[in-house]
Parts: sequence; structure tokens; C-alpha cells
Amino acid sequence: MLSSTFTRLTNPASLASAAARRHALRAPLAVRNLATMSSATSLTKDPSRSSIGGASSYLSNVADFKIIESTLREGEQFANAFFSTEKKIEIAKALDEFGVEYLELTSPAASTQSYNDCRAIVDLNLNAKILTHVRCHMDDAKLAVQTGVDGLDVVIGTSSFLREFSHGKDMQYIIDTATEVIQYIKGEGLEVRFSSEDSFRSDIVDLLNLYRAVDKLGVNRVGIADTVGCASPDQVSELVRTLRGVVSCDIECHFHNDTGCAIANAYAALQNGATHVDTSVLGIGERNGIPSLGGFIARMYAADKEYVKSKYNLAKLRDIENIVADAVGVSVPFNNPITGYCAFTHKAGIHAKAILNNPSTYEILRPEDFGMTRYVAIGHRLTGWNAVKNRVEQLGLPLTDADCKKITNKIKNLADIRPLSLDDVDKLLRRYDEAKVDDSHHAILEGIDTPDQISQWQ
Amino acid sequence: MLSSTFTRLTNPASLASAAARRHALRAPLAVRNLATMSSATSLTKDPSRSSIGGASSYLSNVADFKIIESTLREGEQFANAFFSTEKKIEIAKALDEFGVEYLELTSPAASTQSYNDCRAIVDLNLNAKILTHVRCHMDDAKLAVQTGVDGLDVVIGTSSFLREFSHGKDMQYIIDTATEVIQYIKGEGLEVRFSSEDSFRSDIVDLLNLYRAVDKLGVNRVGIADTVGCASPDQVSELVRTLRGVVSCDIECHFHNDTGCAIANAYAALQNGATHVDTSVLGIGERNGIPSLGGFIARMYAADKEYVKSKYNLAKLRDIENIVADAVGVSVPFNNPITGYCAFTHKAGIHAKAILNNPSTYEILRPEDFGMTRYVAIGHRLTGWNAVKNRVEQLGLPLTDADCKKITNKIKNLADIRPLSLDDVDKLLRRYDEAKVDDSHHAILEGIDTPDQISQWQ
Repeated sequence: MLSSTFTRLTNPASLASAAARRHALRAPLAVRNLATMSSATSLTKDPSRSSIGGASSYLSNVADFKIIESTLREGEQFANAFFSTEKKIEIAKALDEFGVEYLELTSPAASTQSYNDCRAIVDLNLNAKILTHVRCHMDDAKLAVQTGVDGLDVVIGTSSFLREFSHGKDMQYIIDTATEVIQYIKGEGLEVRFSSEDSFRSDIVDLLNLYRAVDKLGVNRVGIADTVGCASPDQVSELVRTLRGVVSCDIECHFHNDTGCAIANAYAALQNGATHVDTSVLGIGERNGIPSLGGFIARMYAADKEYVKSKYNLAKLRDIENIVADAVGVSVPFNNPITGYCAFTHKAGIHAKAILNNPSTYEILRPEDFGMTRYVAIGHRLTGWNAVKNRVEQLGLPLTDADCKKITNKIKNLADIRPLSLDDVDKLLRRYDEAKVDDSHHAILEGIDTPDQISQWQ
Repeated sequence: MLSSTFTRLTNPASLASAAARRHALRAPLAVRNLATMSSATSLTKDPSRSSIGGASSYLSNVADFKIIESTLREGEQFANAFFSTEKKIEIAKALDEFGVEYLELTSPAASTQSYNDCRAIVDLNLNAKILTHVRCHMDDAKLAVQTGVDGLDVVIGTSSFLREFSHGKDMQYIIDTATEVIQYIKGEGLEVRFSSEDSFRSDIVDLLNLYRAVDKLGVNRVGIADTVGCASPDQVSELVRTLRGVVSCDIECHFHNDTGCAIANAYAALQNGATHVDTSVLGIGERNGIPSLGGFIARMYAADKEYVKSKYNLAKLRDIENIVADAVGVSVPFNNPITGYCAFTHKAGIHAKAILNNPSTYEILRPEDFGMTRYVAIGHRLTGWNAVKNRVEQLGLPLTDADCKKITNKIKNLADIRPLSLDDVDKLLRRYDEAKVDDSHHAILEGIDTPDQISQWQ
């Protein structure tokens, strides 16, 4: 049943493994409309990694983005998150060590301790800029400025006002409020972002009017927020591309994951001109959260490995996730990108063979880059003889291909009862090898009917 | 600090809640090229759900797709999956009850028990069609046909042959092999799908040549597989749209989730002409897996709620996930779409207020449709007085807005020490209300310094 015809069809891959480091020349993003954007960066792809679709675009910031890490703001809105001051400091330091460009903190207006925690994190003098997230209101803005943060992420109201807007009627009131808050923050010399909520269910005309108005007021960034998690990548692409032609400032994006698209949406936003992406560790946030830092990093690594490796301390990721998982009382999901316990485990025989020949055949992420290790499972009924042969070589046993094929068939039969541990596979391989001396190796295989027999061997 | 100016900016949303059921007229998909596709369906969106981007496309199958549920094939390749025959039958029955159109099973060539399990599931006579996944080889195909399945999902080799193809040199050999296998399966009266592996790192010209050749042989479907999980939605859109113009048969898509885009990629594929999507329960599969059935359903529900509700038994989803999680020894991830334990929990004060006025403000998925319930957390420092007021009303207490605001400030202060349970919030509300009789309610609040004091009340 282990077809040799099939294997004849394949050739071990020999991809060029060294991705040429790109030196993307990037002009400052200070463009008023599409016509002036000719000097923006384009995405040059590593041809060994993906060869179809995704042609370069002068709008793309896939290799020129900043992370606004919001575990200490959005993450605090996760159902059972409660961070002590000490835990906030531990998380902030770990994220700073990882290399995120910004940390976003809960509004100091939320509670007295929230205010004090803002000050404590500001006092750490991290490399990351410190932001806090406040409602578009002077009281909140003044309180935030007192904490010494580097900038304010201002959000306007709930979504309904934009969705139900009677065109133009209340716009002046909103713009007046925004103007007062934005000018105050700028007057204090701080960064300011202005975001709507529920941007994807808003009226596009009102939305663009509002963003153009605050852009003229000189905000550093406008923000798009998929507050309910309804957006798909094509919608994100359209909105961001349109907005890119309307405002000259940076564009920040915030996506919820209710329909499983948060990471893809963040990527689509960057491809179409967004500059900043909100993440949280493990994606924690309201409901089922936002793009996880790790998942977003996996996506960007696949797009431009060298850029991501040059900016972030990737081996730190697992530690950060463990700190946050522990703090909020959850487990790192088994299917987490990069750090899920099976993320680098290869099982099917056809996969195992190729991965042993050339890992890039079945891996777009190099586990070594994240301080992780690859594992090829061999003691199960989907195993293949190439995986078994590889183990034989690791053990230094002088078995032939024919031996490996016979043993593989025995493993498949036994594993129909239950999978074999690697220890038991090793015992079987060694005993078979020893038995070749007196030609009793066939009898060894014939004498085994259940995995338990091997387990009981000394 | 709880700004009233801010709340004046908002209006409770009053979205039209009844989405008009669409009656999409759909012509049979039997098109040879783009020019003949004028009668295909278009996506009409519910305007209350999303208003930006995603214009209708005549290519879209977002409201006309089929699920190929692969928990019993791809899922068996998950690191620690080992399904007994009884467990396979339980999973197959549950998925059939949910309403998936196809079940895909491990190749009967994998092991003796795999063969017997195929036969056992065929014998269940489910509504779902039964497929098995085999290599493009006559031995495997003949064995599969013997099991009585409805169709074969044929996959060709590993990826390297297409990536390294010396154009045209080995194509005839591959096509000859495929022709023999495909004609045999068709001759037996079964459905046949022909898929490449690692489609997104293949040579596009070779890929299209191969698909065109097998389309002419009369396959029911061609398959695109992102075997390494490197593809992004824009790449998927381009490849599927191109392929849609080349073949007349259906298009199946298989996406891995290494970079967090599997669900978004499946959606992009359907938007651009794909017809069948592979899923597994909880997304289990090689490495960190493929689109989870639940996550994919969430995405499609957001696109066309009525279509999804009419096809699938959504309330069954959680049961199926629990069966599979138990079988493979994992927990349902906390951040799982729909069924993650926090998926319908709302925490921030600003969210809680709106969700109490109109759930659709912050929910794109109605929890009731999935047999789930909504929860608004109120005992934490990010709480707001509208959420507290709502609880007061649920308890039937005659407290004023001013009372609710005072109590809210006390809760926020106490929750800076640690969050309060709902029980403790209720005790506080009741005791405050009772104290109003003798005007001692202010003293009640002033007398509490820690959450522990409330917990100790009888």
C-alpha cells in the first residue's frame, strides 16, 4: 500500500534558503492624494515563499508598519482580565523587550488605579512610546495628559451616531468637540490619534468627512475600528485605500475577531496604506478579542521575514504569551500560530518525508527563528517509511530501506490499536536491529500483536 | 469622571432587525470562461450589518457553497488525534446532524483500520456524501472504490514537482497518471476531485495547464491547497478568480492556518468563485490546522445570516466541538469564535451601555442563534453606570440614576483592588436599597473599603 510509484513523482525541494535582505527605500508618508504617492514603498516578495498573486503595490506598508500593543487596554477588557500594577509593569517590560513600537494603556479616567498605573508605566522610560485610550472629551484628555504619556488615542462616541447620521446635521457639533480636544492635546506637544467606532457599519460619506476634518486639524493618525468584528479583508482593502487618498496622516487599524478575520484584516489594511496595527497578546480583548501579537507576527514574517526579524525579538514571544495567559487564567490555545503546541508538529507520512528532506516544503515559519523546535510524529497509523528511516538514521542503526518499510507496516498495524510513543518506536527499531545478527528479525515483527507488548519490554 | 457630555453624543441604535430573506437566483455553474458567467449569483448584503466595501460580484458564492468537513481526514493528522471507530461514527453522525454536505475520511490505504472505518461510515447512510482522500495512484483509488464511498478527493504528489517544474518536461507523465486514475473513478460512477498541493508556491502556468487538463477529463472539482499556510486573501482572490476563468468544474479550497488567515482565505475564495471549502472541527489538522467549522460558520453568518441559518443546525456546533475536543485531549480555545467562553461577554462600560440598548450595536452574531447566551460583566473597574442600572432593573430595585452613578463609582474603586462577583454586586445593590428607608445608604458606601467586606456579608 505504500506506493513507490507515488514517490517517484516527487523531487526533494531545494529552495534557495537565504532570502535576500531587502533595502526598501521609503519616502516619508506625507501625501494628500493618490497622485502624489509615487514614492511610497512597494512589496518585493521572496520568490521561494509564494509565487502567486499579491503583486506589488505602491500603497503597501507590509514592510513598514508599527505595532500598537494593546494588551494593557483592549486586553484589560477581556472577560476575566485583572492586572495588578506589578503585572502591568512585567507585561510592559516584556513587550518593550520584544520590540513593539507603542504600548496602549487603559484610560486613566477608568479608575484611580488606572491613573496611577499609567504614571507607573510612563516612569519606566521604555523604548516603546506610551499611549492611553480616551473618549473624545476634555476631562478625559486633561487627565491623560497629566500622566505623562507620549500620546492619546482618542475615540469618538459609540457607533450609532455615524450610522444614523442625518447628513451634516450633527457633524458640526462633533467636529467642534473633536477640534477642542485635538488642539488641546497638540498644544501639550503629544501625539494624537482620532478614531471612529464601528467604522465598517458607518456611513462612508460621513466617515470620510470626519476623517478629512481631523486630518486638517493635524492629528498624527486617524483610526479605523471594526468594533463588532464584521469586516472582511476585501472591505478593509476598499476602505483603507479610499481613506489613504483622503487623509495625509498615518492610518491605524483595530480589528475584532468575532468572525475569524482579524489577522487577515490587519494584513489587508497594511497592504492598502495603513501604517499602524493594534494587537494584544493572545488576542485578548472584548468578546473573543483582536489580532494576537503572535498571529500577526506570523503573518508579517510570511510576507517579509527579514524585516520582521530585524525589528522584533521573536524568541521572546512565547515568554510574553505565558506571562499573559497566566495573568488572565487561560491556556495558550493548542492551535495558536507559532506557539501552539502542535504548530511545528508534522504527522502524515507524505508530510514527514518532505519535511525531512527540506523543512521549507511544509513550513512557512522556521521554528528556530521563534525559539521553537520541529517535531515529526512517527508512531501513528498515518506514518510513512521515510519518517521511520530518518529515525533509524538518528539512532545510527544500520537498517536497510527494506527493513524500514517492513517495520513501518508493523507500526501502522499496531497504531490502529493505539499510537506508539517515540520510546516504543525506538525500542522496536533497536530490537529489530539486534535480531538481525541471528536472522530472527522477521520473527520479532511477527511476534508482536499489540503496542502494549512493546511497552512492556525492558 | 463618568462624562455626561460623552453620553450626549450617542444615540441608541435602532437598526432594522429583520434581515430580508434573499432569494438569490442561481444558474448552474457550467461556465467555460468569464464571458459566459453573466448569470451567476451576486452577493446582496444586509445593509444593517455592513455598509462599506465588498460590492457585489457575479463570481461570489458566499451564499451558495458546500462544506467538505475533514475532521476525519485532516483532523486525524492533528498531532495527538487518534479516533477509534466508535468515535469516528459519533463525530460523523454529529456533523451530519449539523448539516455539512460532505465528510472527508482518511485514505483506506493508510492502514487496515482506516479501510474498515471508511466502510463503517459509508454503512451509516448519512445525508452527507462520503469522500475519502487518496494519492493519485491506481492502487489507492481501487482500494477507495471498494469501500463504497461517494467520491474520491485525489491529490497529486508533494508540492516540489510543480515548483521545480522544467516547463512541460514531466507534465505529460503527470497528466497520463491523472488520466488513468480519474477515468477509473468516473467509470465507477463516483465523484472525483483533483487537487495540487502547495498551490500558492507553484508555477502558475503549470498549475493552470494541469487544472485545464483534468477539467477536460471531466473531474467534478479541482482543488487548491495552501498546504503550508502562506497565502493571504489577496493572493487567494487572484488565483481563484484566474482559475474560475480556466475551468468549468467546481473549485474546492483547502487552507492551512499557520499565519492566521485560513478563515479569511476561505471567504476570499468563495467571493471569487470557489464552491467548496474544507473545514475541521476546532480547525484540527497538520500543525495548527485549517479553518475551524465554527469560525468559518461565523464568517459566513456575518455575510449572509439567513442562508447559513437555513442550511445548518447552528445550535449543534458546541456539542460537536466538545466531542472532538474531548476525543483529541484539547480544550476549546478561550478565544474560539462563537463558542469561546468569552465570545459573548461584554465588559467595558461604553460597550455595556450600548449592548443593553441594542445588542446589534456590538454583536454581529446573535448568541441565541447558536444556543449561546450574552453576558455583561459589571463588577470590574472598567464598568459603567448604565450596566449597573440595568442590573438594578433586573433586580427590581427602585434606585435612581443618581444612586446608580454613586454605586458605580464605589464599584470602580473596590474593583481596583480586585473584581467583584455578580453575587457581591447584587448584595451591594440590595443593601444600599434597604438602607434608603432610614437614609443610611450613603454611610453604607462610605463604610466599604475592600471587596472582601462585601463578600463577608451574609
